[in-house]
Amino acid sequence: MNDAERVDAVLDGVLPRVPLIEPLPAAMRYAVLGGGKRIRPRLVYAAGRLAGASLESLDAAAAAVELIHAYSLIHDDLPAMDDDDLRRGRPTVHRQFDEATAILAGDALQALAFEVVADAEVDTTTVQAWVKLLAEAAGHGGMVGGQVLDLAGENRALDQGELEALHRRKTGALIHAAVMMGGVAGHLAPDELARLGRFGAEIGLAFQIQDDFLDATTATEVLGKPQGSDARQGKSTYVSLLGIERARAHAVATYLAACGHLSAFDDRAEGLLAIARHIVERKK
Amino acid sequence: MNDAERVDAVLDGVLPRVPLIEPLPAAMRYAVLGGGKRIRPRLVYAAGRLAGASLESLDAAAAAVELIHAYSLIHDDLPAMDDDDLRRGRPTVHRQFDEATAILAGDALQALAFEVVADAEVDTTTVQAWVKLLAEAAGHGGMVGGQVLDLAGENRALDQGELEALHRRKTGALIHAAVMMGGVAGHLAPDELARLGRFGAEIGLAFQIQDDFLDATTATEVLGKPQGSDARQGKSTYVSLLGIERARAHAVATYLAACGHLSAFDDRAEGLLAIARHIVERKK
Repeated sequence: MNDAERVDAVLDGVLPRVPLIEPLPAAMRYAVLGGGKRIRPRLVYAAGRLAGASLESLDAAAAAVELIHAYSLIHDDLPAMDDDDLRRGRPTVHRQFDEATAILAGDALQALAFEVVADAEVDTTTVQAWVKLLAEAAGHGGMVGGQVLDLAGENRALDQGELEALHRRKTGALIHAAVMMGGVAGHLAPDELARLGRFGAEIGLAFQIQDDFLDATTATEVLGKPQGSDARQGKSTYVSLLGIERARAHAVATYLAACGHLSAFDDRAEGLLAIARHIVERKK
Repeated sequence: MNDAERVDAVLDGVLPRVPLIEPLPAAMRYAVLGGGKRIRPRLVYAAGRLAGASLESLDAAAAAVELIHAYSLIHDDLPAMDDDDLRRGRPTVHRQFDEATAILAGDALQALAFEVVADAEVDTTTVQAWVKLLAEAAGHGGMVGGQVLDLAGENRALDQGELEALHRRKTGALIHAAVMMGGVAGHLAPDELARLGRFGAEIGLAFQIQDDFLDATTATEVLGKPQGSDARQGKSTYVSLLGIERARAHAVATYLAACGHLSAFDDRAEGLLAIARHIVERKK
């Protein structure tokens, strides 16, 4: 069982099945178990292995970051936000169910992420650190703040600094948190944790640059969401700013900078480096 | 400074001021600092006093329950949900700002609640217990599940059992959590905590029955939200089920049952009993 399959089993176990409140549980399951790449949970496991944590002790953190990610996708797709009909090759949650159910499923998934962390079989110091990392990444200083900047940037050209500030929040913060949640579960020295954090921040940015590149260059049926939707929404992207070639080069340069922060870990970093490579080499 | 003023100061301190991501911070502040009754924070402080906790150690829990409450009001008022224009005598958040900002402000307030708990200057065992209580109350088994039942009940007559199941989740769960978060911060025996929990569950239900009574009997300008909106939305209420007189009597009976669970605490229960009395005697 690989890490993606492992977190799928954990997620299946924590997601509710309560007939009384249907369609909420069905919508939550639809959003989470719809076959994402599980990059954030895989980063939790890989960073945790590097830090010497047991796989079992990482399950809750791995599930929690994916629950937060899934909730953010539901809300980002809503008519009042990006108004998207397609996600991972299937109708978005508000299309498959309805808008109220989509809002509530997102709300419930955010709460469930923290419930899963609180129920984790780890010491309470780790629980406290995880809650803090997750809440900061999800909140106004992280993901939600990034979405605000994203909406504000529609039909206005952002410069590269603004675009980077946006994506460090919108995508980078949760990827950084995933790496750090794995890290704090183990036994790292403060300077090692700091290096891990710098890797997480850079690889989060590399992820988004590659995402912009794929949005501009990959067919809808491969991508699972409409090709070119950023351009249609008038959003600034690394491709609109730099062009396709230089955007791709920037993704690779950011990936290399990320990997540089792991050099001191020698072959303990193998798992994280493999995911990092996947992030910039993926085709969808 | 009374407890409501105290939590207002705490909330003002934890709510963000980040010009870059405006209008998000303004919307969060508008929603939270708009002059609610602060019943949930007051329950945290009163239960905490009963349990022997210091006031300072309760600030984070008091702020967190109000942040969750404020977020739930924003999302409940959205066009896809109850579609309300007025709240606490002012335009609802999506009317004052826009729908995307309202969704995101709610999302950010939920994350902020957990961030505040994680940052609390209490031992990590209390943090873990608070996160668990708050997440369970906010999530699919609590508030969000209750809102699903509420929406499903529009234009369909619920029986009293269904209505109670709805309100134990939608309103009761967070009020119960507020009481318990105060309780676990102190030094109570397990059977004392259990009694506190039963008080919390009953007074949460009494709160909602009184709310239904006020919705049917109190003028819009007193209530701060449109009178009779439940009936217009075709919602079952204790008034539609029982009539005005019997609904009021049921609120009082539920209040008395709640207070009964506190009898063993003698005059340590004074603070909680005063809030309980206010809950069923309030005029808005």
